[in-house]
Amino acid sequence: MTDKPGVIDLNADLGEGFGRWTLTDDEALLAVVTSANVACGFHAGDPVTMRRVCETAVARGVRIGAQVSYRDLAGFGRRAMDVPAEELAAEVAYQVGALDVFARAAGGRVAYVKPHGALYNRTVHDAEQAAAVVAGVRLAGGLPVLGLPGSRLLAAAEGAGLPAVSEAFADRAYTARGTLVPRGEPGAVVHDPDAVVARALAMATEHAVTALSGERVSVRARSLCLHGDTPGAAGLAVRVRDELVRAGVELGAFA
Amino acid sequence: MTDKPGVIDLNADLGEGFGRWTLTDDEALLAVVTSANVACGFHAGDPVTMRRVCETAVARGVRIGAQVSYRDLAGFGRRAMDVPAEELAAEVAYQVGALDVFARAAGGRVAYVKPHGALYNRTVHDAEQAAAVVAGVRLAGGLPVLGLPGSRLLAAAEGAGLPAVSEAFADRAYTARGTLVPRGEPGAVVHDPDAVVARALAMATEHAVTALSGERVSVRARSLCLHGDTPGAAGLAVRVRDELVRAGVELGAFA
Amino acid sequence: MTDKPGVIDLNADLGEGFGRWTLTDDEALLAVVTSANVACGFHAGDPVTMRRVCETAVARGVRIGAQVSYRDLAGFGRRAMDVPAEELAAEVAYQVGALDVFARAAGGRVAYVKPHGALYNRTVHDAEQAAAVVAGVRLAGGLPVLGLPGSRLLAAAEGAGLPAVSEAFADRAYTARGTLVPRGEPGAVVHDPDAVVARALAMATEHAVTALSGERVSVRARSLCLHGDTPGAAGLAVRVRDELVRAGVELGAFA
Amino acid sequence: MTDKPGVIDLNADLGEGFGRWTLTDDEALLAVVTSANVACGFHAGDPVTMRRVCETAVARGVRIGAQVSYRDLAGFGRRAMDVPAEELAAEVAYQVGALDVFARAAGGRVAYVKPHGALYNRTVHDAEQAAAVVAGVRLAGGLPVLGLPGSRLLAAAEGAGLPAVSEAFADRAYTARGTLVPRGEPGAVVHDPDAVVARALAMATEHAVTALSGERVSVRARSLCLHGDTPGAAGLAVRVRDELVRAGVELGAFA
Repeated sequence: MTDKPGVIDLNADLGEGFGRWTLTDDEALLAVVTSANVACGFHAGDPVTMRRVCETAVARGVRIGAQVSYRDLAGFGRRAMDVPAEELAAEVAYQVGALDVFARAAGGRVAYVKPHGALYNRTVHDAEQAAAVVAGVRLAGGLPVLGLPGSRLLAAAEGAGLPAVSEAFADRAYTARGTLVPRGEPGAVVHDPDAVVARALAMATEHAVTALSGERVSVRARSLCLHGDTPGAAGLAVRVRDELVRAGVELGAFA
Repeated sequence: MTDKPGVIDLNADLGEGFGRWTLTDDEALLAVVTSANVACGFHAGDPVTMRRVCETAVARGVRIGAQVSYRDLAGFGRRAMDVPAEELAAEVAYQVGALDVFARAAGGRVAYVKPHGALYNRTVHDAEQAAAVVAGVRLAGGLPVLGLPGSRLLAAAEGAGLPAVSEAFADRAYTARGTLVPRGEPGAVVHDPDAVVARALAMATEHAVTALSGERVSVRARSLCLHGDTPGAAGLAVRVRDELVRAGVELGAFA
Repeated sequence: MTDKPGVIDLNADLGEGFGRWTLTDDEALLAVVTSANVACGFHAGDPVTMRRVCETAVARGVRIGAQVSYRDLAGFGRRAMDVPAEELAAEVAYQVGALDVFARAAGGRVAYVKPHGALYNRTVHDAEQAAAVVAGVRLAGGLPVLGLPGSRLLAAAEGAGLPAVSEAFADRAYTARGTLVPRGEPGAVVHDPDAVVARALAMATEHAVTALSGERVSVRARSLCLHGDTPGAAGLAVRVRDELVRAGVELGAFA
Repeated sequence: MTDKPGVIDLNADLGEGFGRWTLTDDEALLAVVTSANVACGFHAGDPVTMRRVCETAVARGVRIGAQVSYRDLAGFGRRAMDVPAEELAAEVAYQVGALDVFARAAGGRVAYVKPHGALYNRTVHDAEQAAAVVAGVRLAGGLPVLGLPGSRLLAAAEGAGLPAVSEAFADRAYTARGTLVPRGEPGAVVHDPDAVVARALAMATEHAVTALSGERVSVRARSLCLHGDTPGAAGLAVRVRDELVRAGVELGAFA
């Protein structure tokens, strides 16, 4: 990765509908982000939606990523599963390949992989599943992997010679050690829009944020993750982008 | 298509298990066929099986095709569905892309598309669905399409500038007009192994077969379809191949 | 059926989410209808939603019906399928049984069956599938069937000795023969809320409606179908109910 | 439970196909067992198969049980899942209800519940999921629960006032403490048919078995679990039954 210093990527989950159901405001988010994590059909995402999102993303110069998941439509990929490594690797590759056909048809290609939901959380600590996800990414040709700094997933990606891209969350509280305050603990999620915007600015320009316990902690991330599946989320994402641009932050997908 | 004259392709459906369940004797069939129609997960086929079949196919020099289907695991893709054209096209492309990742990981690529079951039968006569399948194949980059001579599917492929490859069935009875006797009619399926072998030979060397009504009818097909999902089927496929080779027929995938 | 004359039932589709996705405003609709067509998991509907809808329905005295469908989550049950009769019957019974467990847990029971989407439309004309649905209802113990007057479905129900309950649509145009103007034709759907309310009143009090061609035609229906899956739909349903009550129409589920 | 002393139940998993795929030899097993654990569609089992197995079971006087599972067709229910308790309970009830419709249509009813695969293993130790399964069984009306002696599942069943029925495995090695030797450890599975028969006899007549370490350990189980999904399994099940009968053991489902 030889990215220009100071450039920040904005990523969000997109295409998380299925057939008749919609969830994410894809049009609005594609006007904000520089990288789109597109659902591939295992926790959400149907072929028509995948195609449409890829077409819009390419038209707007947004980077396309495969948001891979456990096979769990009923649980939206939020239920951790003990999938054997060989199966998990093949399932990841399957999803990347399925999305890539639409990315290429639109004139782009899948440029990175980010696990979704329970798979994202599990591969923070579970070395075997992290290795399986990376094995799947390699089966699919080898791509950058987007994830949490310090995670087993990014370590496995680096070990396999794949670019490991760190992300930060402007709407999540951090501990004094620079890790995320676990969901469920008091104060884990930042709900105040002004605070989210301020934290995004601090992360992008000072590479730091105020921890829940009050300390200033370093947060080095090449990408900021925005959320788009709650009411008002797309509007907040627009605000974050606008404030970053106003502050002179250069937005750009990772290389 | 500038294939050498007299060369015949042998194709069969493979990888038609799902998770714990198996159906086709993939190992045995991959020693017989020159083209493998690999299930892509919509009527059958899981990622692990797709990967394994692709690896063996490439190792044996067998051409890999995407056996695309309606999304119908419960019905094994045998229930015709009124899928809107846009959805059907995207579903076809999705399946081709998912399989292609395993073909490429093994050092090959998906080289053709053949619809499965009810989608195969429906696109013989249904011009809209035939066009949708071809639109999906074009989304996936454009590939040869394998199907029934005279079908709407092959006409649509030709109309789109894609190679249209005709196949014949040694175990199916033909009418005096050279079309298949519909399943369900008496004598539609040839059960006698010796007769199947003799018909395969006639198709490959004389480009003709005896119709159910007794006439000799022309059957021009670049590929012969063998079946592998019934007891004894793999054994019969081996016999067909051996007799063709003994008769001096050159076996080879289509270009 | 020995229903009191002049009593009208209001039915609507409910519980049509799946896992993370929601569609129908179940709480609002359960305050309006006298009969709830609850999705059973094949086109929509997950166990948690089914349970919650049944609990609220019983608490409010709303009749619970099984809204059975083709097995087609990706297409929301809107894609007609050639399901063999034996399979269709068993699939219908499966869905009724799954819903009934939640109805009974809440102190109620499944009291009728109404097919959804493509299955509803198909069984208007397709006698074989109509018979299969009714066979499935009989497997599930035998229940009233709610459907379109003149449909093969209601004929099959009557033939099997099951109560056949006719419904009408206040937001659909009728022909001079009293049948629905097919969707897709100009004027098929009535969008003006005032017109919908007026038509509901006419149907409930005069058993008649003005056809698209201007004639007054008879519409005898024991139930009026309200729609709840579009923006503003729940609000319109409330208006229809309020106007019917104001006009002295007695609302009540069918026996 | 006021069962006659000395009576032993034989249970096996049945109906574990899906659509085109079959796995268990249902006909053969229904001639052997006194209790059939019927797959309900979440890891295996389609409505047609469920109906057929129930009809044969009732015809032969075999008790019908719901073999409930995680929703995981691709993994055959063998991948442990972190399903929230409310969802798991509702999913269990859904499956019991779906099966019960076929049991009742055949003149029987679902008489007990046994978790399958990863859910069986997980609820040995996981108190929360064990409680959720039992909550689902109670939603479905309350039924006996079949499981491993000492498991959290049977403890939860007892705590809820449901009959808890213990089973033993003639083809699994036991530790000196009377627990199962974990799969994967050497000697965990008994492959020799003669040994399996001898152990079944010892379990039924002496309520004891020789542990892997050589000690005689007590094994008190109301039911013996036979396996039917491997080649030769049905034949071995017949032998076990015949030897038990010859030894004067009375076979009978639990009350």
